[in-house]
Formats: sequence, C-alpha cells, structure tokens
Amino acid sequence: MAYRKTPAELRRLETARDHLVARATEVVAEVGWAQASVTAVADAAGIAAGSVYQHFPSKAALAVEVFRRASGHEVEVLGEVLRAEGDPVERLARGVETFARRALENRGLAYALLAAPAEPAVGAERLAYRLRYRALFAETVEQGMAAGLLPPQDGRITAAALTGAIGEVLVDPLGTPDEGSTEALLVELVAMALRCAGAAPAP
Amino acid sequence: MAYRKTPAELRRLETARDHLVARATEVVAEVGWAQASVTAVADAAGIAAGSVYQHFPSKAALAVEVFRRASGHEVEVLGEVLRAEGDPVERLARGVETFARRALENRGLAYALLAAPAEPAVGAERLAYRLRYRALFAETVEQGMAAGLLPPQDGRITAAALTGAIGEVLVDPLGTPDEGSTEALLVELVAMALRCAGAAPAP
Repeated sequence: MAYRKTPAELRRLETARDHLVARATEVVAEVGWAQASVTAVADAAGIAAGSVYQHFPSKAALAVEVFRRASGHEVEVLGEVLRAEGDPVERLARGVETFARRALENRGLAYALLAAPAEPAVGAERLAYRLRYRALFAETVEQGMAAGLLPPQDGRITAAALTGAIGEVLVDPLGTPDEGSTEALLVELVAMALRCAGAAPAP
Repeated sequence: MAYRKTPAELRRLETARDHLVARATEVVAEVGWAQASVTAVADAAGIAAGSVYQHFPSKAALAVEVFRRASGHEVEVLGEVLRAEGDPVERLARGVETFARRALENRGLAYALLAAPAEPAVGAERLAYRLRYRALFAETVEQGMAAGLLPPQDGRITAAALTGAIGEVLVDPLGTPDEGSTEALLVELVAMALRCAGAAPAP
C-alpha cells in the first residue's frame, strides 16, 4: 500500500503553505514580482529555499497562488459591497470606493495585482480575474437600469469600462500619497464611475 | 582604423530589420507573444533563425520593438484625431471611435498590444504607452472643460479612466465579431466614453 500522509501531516503542510504564501505576498507587495525570488520569499518565511519547492513546483506557480489569493480576496470584498442591500447606484459608489481605498492602503500589492509587469502565467490570471470584476459590475449596472436609476446601456460594456477605468486610475495615482490627496482621488474616482454608468449627478 | 559599415550596408541592414519587424508583427497578431518564437518569425521573414540575432539580441528585444512600433503608430493616429480642429467633445468621440475601430479591424494585434500575457519587458512597455494615451486624452478633456463643454473634473483621472476603460472593453469584446455587432459596440463605447467625461448626452 502506498504511503499516505496522516491528517496531522496534511494539516501541518497546509499551515506551512499558507504561511509561505502570506510571506510571499508581503515580499511581492514590497519589491514586486521580478525581485520576489524564491530565496527572498524563503528568507521571509524563515525556511530554506529548497523547502519552497515542497509546496510549489516553480516560482511561477507560487506567483500564481499569491495572485489568486490576494485577488480572490479583493473580488470577494467587492462582491459583498456590491451585493449588499439597497439602491444599486449607492452600492456601485460604495463598491468603487471600497475597492480603491483598499488598493490605496496597500499600493505595492495593488500595483502588483493590477498592472506590474509579471510572468505570463500571472498575466493570464489577471485577465481571468478581470472577468470576475466585470461580472460583478455588470450585475449592479443591470440592477440600476431595472430600477430606472441608470439610463439604457449595454451593462457588460459599462462593466468592462469600469473595471478598466478603476484599474488604470489606481495604477499610477497622481501626486504624492498623503491623506488629503487620497480622499480627493477617491471622490474623483467615484464621481467618474457614476458618470460612466450614467447616474444622475448628486443634487 | 576600425571597420565601419558603408552607407549602403547600413541601409540594407535597416531594410532587413524593418522587414523582420513587420513580419514579426504579423506573426504576433496571428499566434500571440508566446507562440511567436524566433524560428516562427524567421520563417515568416524568409531568413534563418540565426539571422534574427543580427538585428536583435533576444526574442524579448524583438518583442519590445514589435510592441513599440505598433503601439507608437496607434498613439500617433489617436493624437492626430484628438488634435484635429474643432469641438473637443467631438474630437474625443472621434478619437475613441477611431482607436476602437482600428483595434477591432485587427483584433489579434490589438489583443497582443492591450492585454495578452507577455514577457515582463513587453508589460513594461505597455505601461509606458498607456501614459502616452493618458496624456493625449487629458489634453482633450482639459480643452473640453476650458470650452465649457465638460463639467469640472480632474482631467488626468478622467484620462486614465478612458485609457483603461477603452482598453478593457476591447480586450474581450462581446459576442461574435460581425459587422453589425462591431458598429453597435463602437456606438456603446463612444457613448460610455462621453458619459465618463461628463459630456451632455446628444439631443
């Protein structure tokens, strides 16, 4: 009979893997994909470089996992806000603000997730996750139209536009990051998103 | 005295290089960055694979040149339309339509330039060229505000949003590409861009 890992061994492995991915995410946020070498990540996790390969066959596989976990979390948070109770236009505004505020609070990670040059495997994940953002925005825009709060439009196109627009604005935010400029940027970004969806300007 | 190439030799080299880049661009448009190997590109150009390295030190260097020429041309075309005579809002609409129409007429190349997973060197170029699109759109939005045709806004943020929005909509256009759906997409895209900049809806 082939050797099988005990439940305790599996749990230990999973914990070690989670720890490694969490440390790798911090390294990527700090130095970017290119500089986040297996050695740098292993150092941060307090393990030998060789041990990284117990969990991931390659640096690219680890990078993909870092991307998926971090982006998956952002998609979840956005989905919760967009799918909360109430007026679809208000939810859209809150969703854009929440997403952007989180990105601006961890600019290094946001840049890595949204735009930083990365290996093609990460680029492919980026495209896949963008489709998830698009689906969430499309749902909210459709609800806004159904409620008569947004004018007739192809919700899927507006959703794609919102996804691209928000990402691009956050890639290279303007000016030096201080609290005042961050709040001003959020106000402009939400206003732009509402205009893009055709919401009537706030009275 | 060191050997120097004669003017005739330099011209011949430049012509060969131009030919190689043009064929490589066609290969990238057809099969994408990953499949556009040095061998595939050399075959398309009718030269030996080794000869590619007379012109470019690496596949990445060739890819960067393909990207720069093709994107440089798109930036130029967009700049010409946006900087033509007349009403800034009309120029913005024409610029978006021209850019998108060109992309939809060569979807393979547009996808490669805008979004396809590529080596990091191409990713870095993509970010640099996006700043050029942003600068062009910002200029037009500022002119629209100055003319009283667009409401007060941070033109740089709207410009970033337009750049990201248009790119994302074109990355994965909806439905099967036929003439009718292309025209409908262009109408939606231009309408979205004008809303995004806050232009009054056409009467």
